[in-house]
Parts: sequence; C-alpha cells; structure tokens
Amino acid sequence: MNWKLTLSYDGSTFHGWQVQPDLPTIQGTLAATLLHLTGETVLPQGSGRTDAGVHALAQVASFSLDGTIPAENLLRALNRALPPSIRILSAETAPETFHARHSARSKTYEYRIFQRRSHLDTTDRICPPFLAPYVWDCRWPLDAAVMQQAAVWLLGTHDFTSFAASDPDLAQRITSATPGPNPIKTITASAFSIENDLLFYRITGSGFLHHMVRNIVGTLADIGRGALTPQDIPIILAKKDRAAAGPTAPASGLFLHSVQYGPDAPQ
Amino acid sequence: MNWKLTLSYDGSTFHGWQVQPDLPTIQGTLAATLLHLTGETVLPQGSGRTDAGVHALAQVASFSLDGTIPAENLLRALNRALPPSIRILSAETAPETFHARHSARSKTYEYRIFQRRSHLDTTDRICPPFLAPYVWDCRWPLDAAVMQQAAVWLLGTHDFTSFAASDPDLAQRITSATPGPNPIKTITASAFSIENDLLFYRITGSGFLHHMVRNIVGTLADIGRGALTPQDIPIILAKKDRAAAGPTAPASGLFLHSVQYGPDAPQ
Repeated sequence: MNWKLTLSYDGSTFHGWQVQPDLPTIQGTLAATLLHLTGETVLPQGSGRTDAGVHALAQVASFSLDGTIPAENLLRALNRALPPSIRILSAETAPETFHARHSARSKTYEYRIFQRRSHLDTTDRICPPFLAPYVWDCRWPLDAAVMQQAAVWLLGTHDFTSFAASDPDLAQRITSATPGPNPIKTITASAFSIENDLLFYRITGSGFLHHMVRNIVGTLADIGRGALTPQDIPIILAKKDRAAAGPTAPASGLFLHSVQYGPDAPQ
Repeated sequence: MNWKLTLSYDGSTFHGWQVQPDLPTIQGTLAATLLHLTGETVLPQGSGRTDAGVHALAQVASFSLDGTIPAENLLRALNRALPPSIRILSAETAPETFHARHSARSKTYEYRIFQRRSHLDTTDRICPPFLAPYVWDCRWPLDAAVMQQAAVWLLGTHDFTSFAASDPDLAQRITSATPGPNPIKTITASAFSIENDLLFYRITGSGFLHHMVRNIVGTLADIGRGALTPQDIPIILAKKDRAAAGPTAPASGLFLHSVQYGPDAPQ
C-alpha cells in the first residue's frame, strides 16, 4: 500500500530532513518510528529536503508498506510514538504512482521576519525568546512596501542561478519537483503580509534551488533597508551570478508552507 | 551601583535558573555574560528559582556592580551578548536595599494548556510542534468552567503542604518571598481564561512552594476531566498531604509571569 503523509515539524533541533548517520533528522526519525510500529524498513520520500533549522507547516512524504493498517490507526500511532517536534497532520493511502517529490506540481514557502510595528522604535525592540527559533530577528528596520514592489519582479519564469547556493556541491542538492539542477523556475506567487510584529513572505514556485528562498529573502531585506532597490531584482536575475544577490537569510525564519499536487495524489 | 534587571527566557534548553557546574542555566549564563561585559564577578539573584523547562515572561534579577555604566548601554550590550533564548526587557539602577527575592511582595505564574476549542474533536487534535515546548499538550478534554470553580477555592490564606513537592530536599527549595519553608501562603488571584486553542491559568500569591503551581494545575486538570470535583480542593488543602492532590503538570507549560515589588524597587 502506497501512503501519503502530511506532517509539520519544528526544525530547530534536527539536522534537516535527510537521513544522516548518528544525527537526528526528520526523515531518519520517521523511518525509525515506522520500523518500530510496523516492523518494515522504509525510507519515506519527502517533497524536498529542508536544511537544519528549517521548519515545515505541511511537508509531504510518501512510502510503501506491505502490511495493511487503517489510516486513522497509523496517524494516531505515529503521533503517539514521534517526538512532539514532529506531528503527522494526515495519513492517507495513495495511488501507486504517487511520489511526494515526483508528483509535486509546485511548492509554497513562508519566511517570517520579526519587526516591531513602528520603525521608529528601534532602540528597545526585543524579539521574545519564544519566537526566536521561528523567525529572523532582523536588526535593521525594513520597508515592507518597497520589499513588496521588489517581490513582484520575481513572478514569472526566470533563471534563478543568482539565487542558488554558490557551493557547486550544494547547488546539486536541488529541491525542485523536476529532476536535475535546472535553474529555470516559474514563480506564481511572491508577496508580503504583516501580522502583529511579524513580516511574512510567501513564495510559490514550480521548484526551488538550494538556498533559493533564503537568498531571495536576504536580497529583499537588502532592498527593505535601502541598500538595493526593487529595480535591482531583474538586473540580479540577468547576471546569473550568486555574487550579484544579497546574503542568505537565517534558516530559523523559513517554513515549507505546503506542497501542491495533481490528480495522482489522494483527493 | 545596585541593579534591577527584568528578563524573559525560554527555559526549554536550560537546566533551570540556578547556576550549576557544567550545565547551561539562566543564572550561570547571565553571570558569565556580566563578567565578559564588565570584568566583574557577580551572581545575579533571581526573584526565585525556576526549574528546568520552565519559562519566564518577566523574571527579575538584582546584583551590584562597582563600575558605572549607563542603563541603556547595559541593556543593549547584554542583549547583544546573550543567546536569543534570554532577552533583557529592562535594566534599571535600584536603591541599595533592593533585592530581587527579599523585596518581592508577590509573584504571578501563568500556566498554558493546549486544548482544541471543541471538546468533541478529540480524535484529531494535534498540538503544533512550534507550540509544544511552551504548553502542556493535555491528552484529555478539560471542562474549563469546572476548573474555574475549583480555582476560586484556592483564594485566600492556606497551608499549601498538599501542593508542595513531596521530596523533603526539594521541599526546602522554597521559591517564596519570605524566608524558610513556611507552607502558609496567601493567594490573591487564581483564574482561567481561554484564547484560541490555549487554556491559560494565572495565579498570584505571596510566595510559592517548590512545584506548587504545577501540582495545583495537575489537580485542577484532574477536576477538569471529572476525576475530582471543585469541592475536593478544600479537602485536599486540609489534609496537608502531597498524596491527596493530583499529579505534577509538565514544566513546559509554566511561565513566571511577573513579580510585584514595594516602594524600595525602581518605580
């Protein structure tokens, strides 16, 4: 039986999604728990890897089990056995062709930046310790309206080489829905919103290169503090050079928000 | 110069407030940071100890420094040097007589319980992983109205021996504003409120015995699930026996909310 799991996790205490010897990872913890519960050795495939410290609101994983088990029992048993930092939101049987990565049509990431509502109030702005693992506590005031103008320039189909991890080894670690390190991606949503002391950025795309969202956010923050302008985005894209873009924003603010699938996924 | 610091911390990654050799604690981290910044060896005194995993929204600490430093500089330097899990909310010079523990008149604790809004929806209630370090993910549905009735019975002056840690060594670790393990405390506020999926309990008292708030919450939860009734509270108090009360609620849900001082504190 082929399975589709939707899960949320706090990435703070994990060394990313991908299984690694002797290090706690989401994939490794999930595999160990499935072995413990079912006696079967399976390696759940994620829609993509997440780096150390990166969180997920709704990651998707797929795997096959020989035995049969009612979906609600699997859901309950997993949540009982897993640590509180990993929660299974749903467990569904899926068509045999369904694969969490190959079947994905697009993914949405969310990035959270801590900002006091008033930009004037910069001396005593303090990020609550309970929020720190889940945001970028950005030290300078950001102009969200200018960042929103810049975000619009990312919509459409572009070569995102300038926003990919410059390390060639890392650049191979593509999180795209399409195989191979194709730097051409289509972005269908790219927008900011503000809620209380948090600035939210959401981006939806056909696929994402390694570090792509964090490099985009680091560049948008450079624009938000006036070091670059929105019109620099098309120039940076055209250069196809990592050095042209801004710094990599911290992992702590990044959440895999959701994964969108076509008709071969459970409906 | 005598100082009063107000600080917030995420207790998840610390072995409590009190300095311990080779273990990360709030007091130890604060002392090491003050030594690093000022060259002076001081041990900040807290309004009371918090156990491992217990958080603070506004703990108060006092200490004396020989050197002079503008308060805003001390505040900024501390927040730059401390980990994001400890944030200084204010730094003020205080009268020489001010002492964070001895000068405290009362303290307020807050306890947070994760509960789905609907009590019917018990099969798929899932505590978000980002909330788990800061709540008690209580597995059974609780009747907040009945717990509120029970909470009222705690108001006034009582002998709280039944709610103190039964370990005699631990029982000596009094967090009270008055010296000695006096089990008689005066409670001036004890009430529940509900916000989204969280049940908040706030209690204000002249002092608290070790584990007292967590033992009260564990007992109130027993009442909320119908194992005890509100009228059992005066009976439990009268027994002066830890075995009469309910279990100890987890540390993760507990926050030192605030400390109230008299006229010798900075106004």
